[in-house]
Amino acid sequence: MIITSCGNSIKLAKSLARKLKAQYSPLTISSFPDGDIYLKYNTSVKGKKVIIVQSFHPSPNSSLMRVIFAAETAKDLGARKVILVAPYLAYMRQDTRFHAGEAISSRIMAKLLNHSIDKIITIDPHLHRYKSLKTIFTIPAVRLTANSVIAEYISKKFDRAKTVIIGPDRESYQWAESIAAKTGMPSTVLEKTRFTSKKVRVKMIKPIPLKGKDVVIIDDIISTGHTIIEAAKKAKSLGAKSITAIGVHGLFVEGLLKLQKAGIKVISTNCIEHTTNKIDVAPVIVEALRSHESARKRLTMD
Amino acid sequence: MIITSCGNSIKLAKSLARKLKAQYSPLTISSFPDGDIYLKYNTSVKGKKVIIVQSFHPSPNSSLMRVIFAAETAKDLGARKVILVAPYLAYMRQDTRFHAGEAISSRIMAKLLNHSIDKIITIDPHLHRYKSLKTIFTIPAVRLTANSVIAEYISKKFDRAKTVIIGPDRESYQWAESIAAKTGMPSTVLEKTRFTSKKVRVKMIKPIPLKGKDVVIIDDIISTGHTIIEAAKKAKSLGAKSITAIGVHGLFVEGLLKLQKAGIKVISTNCIEHTTNKIDVAPVIVEALRSHESARKRLTMD
Repeated sequence: MIITSCGNSIKLAKSLARKLKAQYSPLTISSFPDGDIYLKYNTSVKGKKVIIVQSFHPSPNSSLMRVIFAAETAKDLGARKVILVAPYLAYMRQDTRFHAGEAISSRIMAKLLNHSIDKIITIDPHLHRYKSLKTIFTIPAVRLTANSVIAEYISKKFDRAKTVIIGPDRESYQWAESIAAKTGMPSTVLEKTRFTSKKVRVKMIKPIPLKGKDVVIIDDIISTGHTIIEAAKKAKSLGAKSITAIGVHGLFVEGLLKLQKAGIKVISTNCIEHTTNKIDVAPVIVEALRSHESARKRLTMD
Repeated sequence: MIITSCGNSIKLAKSLARKLKAQYSPLTISSFPDGDIYLKYNTSVKGKKVIIVQSFHPSPNSSLMRVIFAAETAKDLGARKVILVAPYLAYMRQDTRFHAGEAISSRIMAKLLNHSIDKIITIDPHLHRYKSLKTIFTIPAVRLTANSVIAEYISKKFDRAKTVIIGPDRESYQWAESIAAKTGMPSTVLEKTRFTSKKVRVKMIKPIPLKGKDVVIIDDIISTGHTIIEAAKKAKSLGAKSITAIGVHGLFVEGLLKLQKAGIKVISTNCIEHTTNKIDVAPVIVEALRSHESARKRLTMD
């Protein structure tokens, strides 16, 4: 087994290799003066299983292209199997045609990966209109969740009697609810109604007293952070003592400043490498790769 | 028939539409805050033939991705056929593994296009180790040449008795030779031997007197321009009166300044949009699209 990365998840790739006692081998990736991709394996992959670890952030397009180039080249060099571990999978939010003529990007991304890789493993993909990854992937697609490691972190750092877990909108409640259940903490969800670009009303669906509580807001993707900031404002107005936001995928496309100015402590998993990483998803991925390996061995023995 | 572009060849796309009396319809292409591509057709393509005109420069990766997104979306919206007109096709120079472990980018690029488009039309692709586009494309792949329009331009602007056409290296001689034959002008080819990074010897293979001549250097791709500059130096040292460089594909990745400082007049075709464009390839493409259309009509009538 060779573990490599196309540039975005090198730390995680190395950590997975250590835990699995596998070889981490870096790819050489650069650009020719004309902008063409240059990609090179620095170890023989012939007959081997190649695990490409690459989160699709930043630069989802470049990441997708690099993953395809790395996968196709591995196959061309005789790799037995190519597995993509994409802790963060981009494009998933464009899961329908909101207006006539639009690209359904998630389907196109999946089609490209279906052609070039043998299996995909991802963590908490943004499944909203799609019930399952099977809707778009024809290759085996494994959906892992960081809920267990996030719940562990919360249990260790927060007092169960004084903490409330909040989903900042209905789409994110699945994560908040599951993590709350694992920690034994109460949870609720907010609902945002936008009247004008300036006027927004945030309502708590299942009222829970927040006065004096430590509030933990959970979201699968923290992109601009606006949703988190609005949820934090609401929680503060209801008397919350402290606000922590935990994102499975911390994109932080507008940086951290606005979130910090709003008095929010920001934490993320290492699905996407970032200074806010405090929760390690490697154990979850290792388990999935080990069970893949043992399933294969069982199959070979039969 | 709908003609569109993914951003790089809009002028040419509009010119083709005018000449073919077809509809030019712009795509809306932008990025979400997280970097995901947003792409939208602004006219119905259902049942229609969609021609995407897109040179793969600048940003070959982004161009390839946009072309795939545009093609897949057209198909998803019911387009009858998707034809890519890529006057400049990138990646073609990586046509073998120069070192173990390297990606053969041209094969990967072709595989991606094979899956997403129905036909490709390109102009003077850099075929060096591949004999034909069929080596990498399974879809119909049409190789046009700008030789005729370049020869026309030279015949109009240069005096046959006073002009010599030069290929700056062996790879480019196929273009110089063919254009010279069409203009009735003499041609020769240079050969570059590199001793150290500084020491290069340029030799003329078939000696032709250059004293007092107008020299026209022809290359398929002008990338950094270094090869052209070395050829120009040689021609000047042999007494050439003036030096003009004509590139089918003017990438000019280091700009024009060095070329201009070396006293070279630079001209390109509009395969890639650039201020040096003086030679229009639209007539060549129009002819190919018309013959495609009439072949289809013949087929339908049978």
